[in-house]
Amino acid sequence: MIYVTRKEHFNAAHKVWRADWSEEKNTEVFGKCANKNWHGHNYDLYVTVKGNPNPETGFVIDLKYLSKLIKSEIIEVLDHRNLNLDVPFMAGKMASTEILAIEIWKQLAPHIVTHGCNLHSIKLYETENNFVEYFGEKII
Amino acid sequence: MIYVTRKEHFNAAHKVWRADWSEEKNTEVFGKCANKNWHGHNYDLYVTVKGNPNPETGFVIDLKYLSKLIKSEIIEVLDHRNLNLDVPFMAGKMASTEILAIEIWKQLAPHIVTHGCNLHSIKLYETENNFVEYFGEKII
Amino acid sequence: MIYVTRKEHFNAAHKVWRADWSEEKNTEVFGKCANKNWHGHNYDLYVTVKGNPNPETGFVIDLKYLSKLIKSEIIEVLDHRNLNLDVPFMAGKMASTEILAIEIWKQLAPHIVTHGCNLHSIKLYETENNFVEYFGEKII
Amino acid sequence: MIYVTRKEHFNAAHKVWRADWSEEKNTEVFGKCANKNWHGHNYDLYVTVKGNPNPETGFVIDLKYLSKLIKSEIIEVLDHRNLNLDVPFMAGKMASTEILAIEIWKQLAPHIVTHGCNLHSIKLYETENNFVEYFGEKII
Amino acid sequence: MIYVTRKEHFNAAHKVWRADWSEEKNTEVFGKCANKNWHGHNYDLYVTVKGNPNPETGFVIDLKYLSKLIKSEIIEVLDHRNLNLDVPFMAGKMASTEILAIEIWKQLAPHIVTHGCNLHSIKLYETENNFVEYFGEKII
Amino acid sequence: MIYVTRKEHFNAAHKVWRADWSEEKNTEVFGKCANKNWHGHNYDLYVTVKGNPNPETGFVIDLKYLSKLIKSEIIEVLDHRNLNLDVPFMAGKMASTEILAIEIWKQLAPHIVTHGCNLHSIKLYETENNFVEYFGEKII
Repeated sequence: MIYVTRKEHFNAAHKVWRADWSEEKNTEVFGKCANKNWHGHNYDLYVTVKGNPNPETGFVIDLKYLSKLIKSEIIEVLDHRNLNLDVPFMAGKMASTEILAIEIWKQLAPHIVTHGCNLHSIKLYETENNFVEYFGEKII
Repeated sequence: MIYVTRKEHFNAAHKVWRADWSEEKNTEVFGKCANKNWHGHNYDLYVTVKGNPNPETGFVIDLKYLSKLIKSEIIEVLDHRNLNLDVPFMAGKMASTEILAIEIWKQLAPHIVTHGCNLHSIKLYETENNFVEYFGEKII
Repeated sequence: MIYVTRKEHFNAAHKVWRADWSEEKNTEVFGKCANKNWHGHNYDLYVTVKGNPNPETGFVIDLKYLSKLIKSEIIEVLDHRNLNLDVPFMAGKMASTEILAIEIWKQLAPHIVTHGCNLHSIKLYETENNFVEYFGEKII
Repeated sequence: MIYVTRKEHFNAAHKVWRADWSEEKNTEVFGKCANKNWHGHNYDLYVTVKGNPNPETGFVIDLKYLSKLIKSEIIEVLDHRNLNLDVPFMAGKMASTEILAIEIWKQLAPHIVTHGCNLHSIKLYETENNFVEYFGEKII
Repeated sequence: MIYVTRKEHFNAAHKVWRADWSEEKNTEVFGKCANKNWHGHNYDLYVTVKGNPNPETGFVIDLKYLSKLIKSEIIEVLDHRNLNLDVPFMAGKMASTEILAIEIWKQLAPHIVTHGCNLHSIKLYETENNFVEYFGEKII
Repeated sequence: MIYVTRKEHFNAAHKVWRADWSEEKNTEVFGKCANKNWHGHNYDLYVTVKGNPNPETGFVIDLKYLSKLIKSEIIEVLDHRNLNLDVPFMAGKMASTEILAIEIWKQLAPHIVTHGCNLHSIKLYETENNFVEYFGEKII
């Protein structure tokens, strides 16, 4: 079993905000992340796939394909967008890094499994100091 | 003469957009940077000061002071904000990295000169792939 | 289950040295790391916490809280200090990166568990080429 | 149990290519990685060893020894070489990052185990955007 | 005057080698860089353009244009290629980083000047430890 | 004219401290950098040399030579040492990054000029957030 990772990135605006809370309550709980006029980040996304190398190619998965898949399913949807307003798969959800990583997993996992390997993890950097990892529903 | 640099960072939302243009014209000229609902970045800011080391301390400028100055004058104003809507010194200006670097220079230069040294450059990274440098009005 | 990581850093002096050995023996075993007048590093510390996102906030843990906790319990104690001489929780212990990571775990774990999640790992970089990870007593 | 990692690097040429396929088929499957006149990379190699710290030294493994071992067994053999033509342990194998990581594991694991600890993983970056990890035959 | 930089990258094989010298002489002068079967690098290329921001757009140069220009003129020609064998503008020249930077300047400068600004520098990283800068014929 | 840079690094202890001042005055002026039991850093050193490429080799300077020179004259003297106590060329001087950069210049410049090129700059990182540059006595 080998784990293969592809890194992609996107730049997006968001705020951490509950519409059913007042601006005061949002600021009290979320601090400056709740700035009502938004802020943004350069997100780095690491997608890790696991499987056995194909004896013919030496590849677990064709990284050209993996890169294209991440770009078409995720980067096209998130890059230069507002995570709260512009992204169908985030509609009605909190725009935290945790929730975004889980939703990216849901978008990618069904595609990976059709290529004879499995999605292992989504690692998402909001800044170089803050990042999350999600491994799907299984316990590691 | 020694050049001393301090790096700070901030996360902000912006769009590259002219209010006197239609959405179509903005998109035609600025591409995805004109997304009307904003996008954002993790900006890295490098402030370089030049002068001679003080014989008593060995310092051109006290970096604790320089860091506090950048934080109070720039980071507090830009971090977790919208560059187009929330920043007094960017009001009515294009929120390009070029213009932002020039305006940061204008905020900092008068403070530096009172400490026996001079502001040399503002280097501002919008992403790891795009950055600008400004050296004030002199020609280098 | 989501894994959330916060990075902090500190600069410290240390030597790898046993007081019950001669200088010769220390140098023979530890090489230049045993320089009797100390040397030092810029340490990068990654603290990873695991749990389920709170449905109300979308957060596993409030990163503002986690950052403050690491700063008050660890960075205040280690930054710009001598790991062998100045740090109560390292007293009488070898100042290796391995031992330091274990002791940082012991300082932080009791605080994390009171916030409805668990400490998952301490990752400590001594240089960009050397780092250690500790996952507590459990076997992973 | 503590996990200790040492990073080393090497620069090498390779192509992803099957001699039993035509140039057209190689290009169709491997794209520009099959350029017949080679291309190359700055590879970063992370070797992780696990064990308990020695109570006398505080070390899981002497990193000076680990660095020397990686240099003598791996870097001397791969650095400024052609992975397809110059490397005995890659002879007759696909020069993919996956296969190279597995072969590096096979070279290092027997040496590590004689030092009272175990090889945990080989992490190999081909570029900053593409990397693989191998944990030996066990399932993690 | 503002300086705007765009970073791009490419992966290539090369050797530092004179065909009019014996293999022994090449190895004596160029060391392991003369490995006859090639080696390679992940090159990072920084292209800096200088000019005044356009009052209408706030841009010195449209970075989407600059990125496309570097990709079409340089990256398409160098990426996943052999610098000694595959690159028309390097034919008959030493494949050192210095010479490569000068030749990249010659390819790009005529295009930049047609956009109302000037090429300022080419900065080319061969590894993170070795890089060169070229500012054209003028003396800085 | 081409500018060629080599990066090396060293790890050292220091304190910013005047022996003719009380501990209280040292702390008042230098803050935590004056911790009497030292602290330390991973320093990154960039040495830039300028000249014309040799037509025979394509090199401004042989980087193997430059790396060896920096290692023998600087890294051997500074690495895993105490800048205040162990370094002959820093004796009696403030151990600030500014002064250290100037003294490194003085050590290296006479060697570079004997190779048909000139030292252009010393760039010294104390942390990723603080660095200095020195260009010798000339005004740039």
